[in-house]
Amino acid sequence: MITLTSDFGTPYPAAMKGVILQTCETRIIDIGHEFPRQDVTSGAFWLREILPEFPPAVHLVVIDPGVGTDRNALVIQAGAHYLVGPDNGVLIPAARELVGEAEFNVFEITVDSARSSTFHGRDIFAPVAAVVHETIPRPLQSLAELSSIDEYVDLTFPEANITESEIVGDVLAIDSFGNVITNIPGSHLRGESVAAINGRSVPVVQSYAHEPPGTPLITIGSHGNVECAVNQGRGDDAFNLGVGDQVVLDIYDPQ
Amino acid sequence: MITLTSDFGTPYPAAMKGVILQTCETRIIDIGHEFPRQDVTSGAFWLREILPEFPPAVHLVVIDPGVGTDRNALVIQAGAHYLVGPDNGVLIPAARELVGEAEFNVFEITVDSARSSTFHGRDIFAPVAAVVHETIPRPLQSLAELSSIDEYVDLTFPEANITESEIVGDVLAIDSFGNVITNIPGSHLRGESVAAINGRSVPVVQSYAHEPPGTPLITIGSHGNVECAVNQGRGDDAFNLGVGDQVVLDIYDPQ
Amino acid sequence: MITLTSDFGTPYPAAMKGVILQTCETRIIDIGHEFPRQDVTSGAFWLREILPEFPPAVHLVVIDPGVGTDRNALVIQAGAHYLVGPDNGVLIPAARELVGEAEFNVFEITVDSARSSTFHGRDIFAPVAAVVHETIPRPLQSLAELSSIDEYVDLTFPEANITESEIVGDVLAIDSFGNVITNIPGSHLRGESVAAINGRSVPVVQSYAHEPPGTPLITIGSHGNVECAVNQGRGDDAFNLGVGDQVVLDIYDPQ
Repeated sequence: MITLTSDFGTPYPAAMKGVILQTCETRIIDIGHEFPRQDVTSGAFWLREILPEFPPAVHLVVIDPGVGTDRNALVIQAGAHYLVGPDNGVLIPAARELVGEAEFNVFEITVDSARSSTFHGRDIFAPVAAVVHETIPRPLQSLAELSSIDEYVDLTFPEANITESEIVGDVLAIDSFGNVITNIPGSHLRGESVAAINGRSVPVVQSYAHEPPGTPLITIGSHGNVECAVNQGRGDDAFNLGVGDQVVLDIYDPQ
Repeated sequence: MITLTSDFGTPYPAAMKGVILQTCETRIIDIGHEFPRQDVTSGAFWLREILPEFPPAVHLVVIDPGVGTDRNALVIQAGAHYLVGPDNGVLIPAARELVGEAEFNVFEITVDSARSSTFHGRDIFAPVAAVVHETIPRPLQSLAELSSIDEYVDLTFPEANITESEIVGDVLAIDSFGNVITNIPGSHLRGESVAAINGRSVPVVQSYAHEPPGTPLITIGSHGNVECAVNQGRGDDAFNLGVGDQVVLDIYDPQ
Repeated sequence: MITLTSDFGTPYPAAMKGVILQTCETRIIDIGHEFPRQDVTSGAFWLREILPEFPPAVHLVVIDPGVGTDRNALVIQAGAHYLVGPDNGVLIPAARELVGEAEFNVFEITVDSARSSTFHGRDIFAPVAAVVHETIPRPLQSLAELSSIDEYVDLTFPEANITESEIVGDVLAIDSFGNVITNIPGSHLRGESVAAINGRSVPVVQSYAHEPPGTPLITIGSHGNVECAVNQGRGDDAFNLGVGDQVVLDIYDPQ
């Protein structure tokens, strides 16, 4: 199985599929191609959330604002999963999540020349992903152009700062419903019926529809973190929050 | 085969696919994930149109504004098809269409606890759909948590009111071209070359391009009902109509 | 393998998939369904770019503003590929590209009556594509309703006009990043570090990220032609260019 992730929209992902299918007959699954454009951090967040749901697979990821520059191209072995994509950090949080306490291994793809300088998804990453898939469990011996490396672009997400009086976190991502996903562990919310986000008191509920449509609320999202949302509305608009913004959570009733 | 329908956009559908693929190797087909958000009625309409085109399959449907509340979760057996989704009516018109004159059977999924309260698509419906698929033709014996029920949330579409002088119908859906799909059977149009919609006289044509680009018109859509459209334009804008609006059709030339 | 291309958005492509799957078990790959609405020229351009990446396949294409009129329906044999779609030119540039110096063969589908006049993708093209796929390598003998024809709607793209002092080309397409794809062969750019587009001097770079974010630039796109772009921005906005607009390239430093 090969999964595909990009910020390409339509129709460039199809070119990658064609290239893969020239080499192998495997199943191709789209993770999505509508990720925020050239936004490595958002892409890394979503891959960390989604890839661990999959059985062992080759994951081709092309969110790559540096295409055509001298940034490296990588294959990462994370347990029984292989991730293929640019060396800009986008693969790292997912690789770390896939292995848990174990190590992942990073290999550099060295390619002498590509057909284009602007579409490495088609010209480098898709062919490599197909070859990796076809040569499992020995892709590293099969790919002459792979060499193990120790240095790569890392990417980590900030952690919330927790004190007795308040929790100061960050917005990691906005989903397509407009739900604001923070880095504050949901465990801090258990038992509360109301809390304040950036000074605004809102109900704490088990899920969106526990409040009437249009009501701002906080809940524990599917990722386990505090989420600022609106039942049948957009949390990003209601809370005026975007990716990277600070979120101060006061878990005591602020009356 | 498992089909997937949701209002999730990107990338939550991929999490459901990963979960399914952990259990079974079957083909996965997207019906679509860009359905109007939390709009159970529109989703029910499109499922009724699309699912009968498929050979027997398991249909996973997550348009679910009540996720995390005490709404039930259902498996419906409709002939050789199985529908899995929330008990909010979204599955019912498709189930009824799939069986024709026969009966469909409704089962409640009882799940003690889910991994999250906000993403039952990933945590309840996808795993159940995978198990149903793997245990056909005996999913009901295999799923201990299934129990047959008689009461569920029904959903029916209004029927047009037909008198000698006029036909009063409703807008059931707007498609992605902006075509306005009514509940007025197209058979009422046969033979007419002009008709009035809400007092406005427009040509009645066999298909859009029988009028010049930009011309408002009515035709019989692919669903067999009267459709208000504009050749290479948007009928919803031209006729100022939205889902649920009333449509009065006068089939006599209103000169 | 059957590929699907349309301007349908959601959910009409799923109806076509259901119809195909009623007939055959083959792999279905989406080229895309978000192509510019009723824009035969853009669709033809993208098909010419994408289809040659694929191994032999049946390509179902429904960008069809003339649905329901007396325009013909075609099956084109282009080497080991088969293209199925309307006779409006959308298939021709891809067919020509697929065969190179060889010939492609055009067949007319004659269908007595269709289930609808507005959704030939579901009612004519998808069933024909499925039958063609199932009867390879002899679809022409199997399809009684196919007859070879010599006349069809052709579609060619304009060529750039190259003189010693300047190159006058046209915008063929805008991709989903906003990159402006011209018909000027990229070979004219090699060695230059600056050039003028419609009188505006911009850097000539190997790829987008060789200039800072927000910088207008020209580069050689993945199709081999001159592309007007902005690193991490939209070239169509920055250069004020749309499909069909004229582009004058002066390859000498205009200081």
